[in-house]
Amino acid sequence: MTATTTFVAARAAVRAVDEAAAAGARERHLRLTKPPGSLGRLEDLGVQLAAISGQVPPPVPEPVTVAVFAADHGVISEAVSAWPQEVTAQMVANFGAGGAAINVIARQIGAQVVVIDVGVAGDLLPGTVGVLDRRVRRGTRNLAVESAMTDAEMTAALDTGASVTHDAISDGARLLVTGDMGIGNTTASTAIVAALTGTVPVVGPGAGADAATMERKSQVIRRALARLPDEPAPLRVLAEVGGLEIAALVGFITAGAAAGTPVVVDGLIATAAALVATRATPLVGDYLIAAHRSSEPAAGPALDALGLSPLIDLGMRLGEGSGAALAVPLVQAAARILGEMATFDSAGITTKPA
Amino acid sequence: MTATTTFVAARAAVRAVDEAAAAGARERHLRLTKPPGSLGRLEDLGVQLAAISGQVPPPVPEPVTVAVFAADHGVISEAVSAWPQEVTAQMVANFGAGGAAINVIARQIGAQVVVIDVGVAGDLLPGTVGVLDRRVRRGTRNLAVESAMTDAEMTAALDTGASVTHDAISDGARLLVTGDMGIGNTTASTAIVAALTGTVPVVGPGAGADAATMERKSQVIRRALARLPDEPAPLRVLAEVGGLEIAALVGFITAGAAAGTPVVVDGLIATAAALVATRATPLVGDYLIAAHRSSEPAAGPALDALGLSPLIDLGMRLGEGSGAALAVPLVQAAARILGEMATFDSAGITTKPA
Repeated sequence: MTATTTFVAARAAVRAVDEAAAAGARERHLRLTKPPGSLGRLEDLGVQLAAISGQVPPPVPEPVTVAVFAADHGVISEAVSAWPQEVTAQMVANFGAGGAAINVIARQIGAQVVVIDVGVAGDLLPGTVGVLDRRVRRGTRNLAVESAMTDAEMTAALDTGASVTHDAISDGARLLVTGDMGIGNTTASTAIVAALTGTVPVVGPGAGADAATMERKSQVIRRALARLPDEPAPLRVLAEVGGLEIAALVGFITAGAAAGTPVVVDGLIATAAALVATRATPLVGDYLIAAHRSSEPAAGPALDALGLSPLIDLGMRLGEGSGAALAVPLVQAAARILGEMATFDSAGITTKPA
Repeated sequence: MTATTTFVAARAAVRAVDEAAAAGARERHLRLTKPPGSLGRLEDLGVQLAAISGQVPPPVPEPVTVAVFAADHGVISEAVSAWPQEVTAQMVANFGAGGAAINVIARQIGAQVVVIDVGVAGDLLPGTVGVLDRRVRRGTRNLAVESAMTDAEMTAALDTGASVTHDAISDGARLLVTGDMGIGNTTASTAIVAALTGTVPVVGPGAGADAATMERKSQVIRRALARLPDEPAPLRVLAEVGGLEIAALVGFITAGAAAGTPVVVDGLIATAAALVATRATPLVGDYLIAAHRSSEPAAGPALDALGLSPLIDLGMRLGEGSGAALAVPLVQAAARILGEMATFDSAGITTKPA
């Protein structure tokens, strides 16, 4: 288990998953004491974990690290969010203090939460604790009128994500969970999904936008997309209409795949990042587990483009990694099933039809 | 927290849930540090737990007991299953030894598994451990040609279920999970759902029936339903076309509601039992949490009739309580969110729109 500290090194280090282990897990599922296929998609998930780990049964993926990348978006000046930008720094303080939804869910599943300021616009509040300062700049530029990031800024954010993976793996993490916070980031993510899927942007309420705000979001995204060439390169899309926390997630996800570690992908923002990561490095896709179907409309085409089917559909749209953390026990159960269930032989159970 | 030991006493003891606590939980959700409604159905689940417990925030529902009721079905003589009846006793031994899927998932979520033989047909295998002997009779009669149970047999099974709840609550359980095992029990459950919803029976493969077997299942169910009057009483349906483990589940569920305890309902068999329980005692319905959408087709109309929307949809159809146990962390997270998240006030976060 190794991990790289730069995005470029991570891309080069991603290997194909182990199809022989996948076949072995499928065969093992047929010998466990249950009707074949009766555990549905939990069986597929176990097969994927075997393919990623190269082991049958796969090890239970733990410990778990949730990385919450926080950054602001210059596009907020177009009034595309129901919430003021200051909330990003306030929520970062809340993450550090353990009071946010992701902290609560992480405690329940026994996961560590790492909070990374990769580009918050305002000063962190006095008394803020437990936040890694990796700020690339104070928020992105306004993607409605110019590139959100320079290539250098994007690279710094990508490398930040990769280094967070490196440190998590070094500390023992064997399952990575994506988290994000940033007022305005559904605008950026929706633009990414539209650009990379070649579809009309489908705008949602994000953190609670009204109809007029959603119309502004839609116009802003169309203006931004008009600057892009046909079939733009994924990292060009990221720099032009993305965000610093989204770029960091691309690095985090790619480095997770490079380290041979499954990555549980949260909602729209993380799925947009996963789409950039897999378009840039297709082998990354086999390491991804989609946690939940966000109620943000752009999440659907993004999941479809990734070929991922989420585990949970509870109408959530909070971000932070909250949906992904909720799905972790399902992922761990899928591994445990392969490792701990009796076989028909060992349990002395009749297998031939009546 | 009290629990009754008979089904009749349990029915009389079920109380309406606390609507004031539900309102309090809804109000509290608006003050937690997240956009209103952004946790989707997890918020509704927290409100339900508040209503059941009468507390805001609700206590985290733990410890957890999974009760796996096992019994055989005389209708197996009609060749309605892909598996021979001896598998029921073999799987009971597997449950006792900790090798089945439910054991694996229960270990992961920290739940206790109680295995109850309420009507296995064959002798338990030598060396079988950890199984409560509450056998009412050696399987039901053949529901294709006669009543599956006498009223006395049904009552014994109903009371067995209620007594298992009593003992679990006495031992400290604060969340109950339904489990079941019985070759032939999708035939009985599908018949129950058809009878109580007034719909044509929709037959599925159960543990792996082929098309010819499914056609026999369908014919058997139609023959059985023809013996029932229009709009039959729920307990009449249970005795006529049900099963001993299904009756025990009706008692278990009803006594759980009577004890003021949420009950996580597994797949088709448990949902059929929940439908009988709520038709007999409508207040029971507010204590139920549907865990997952079984791929057995009759589960859909049963859930609809109960007005329940399941938390997970992974194409599972194993039974044993496996899907319900998987959903337990979601239920506990819903309570924890209300109890542990910071409020906008306490975290100093701006709530007014930009």
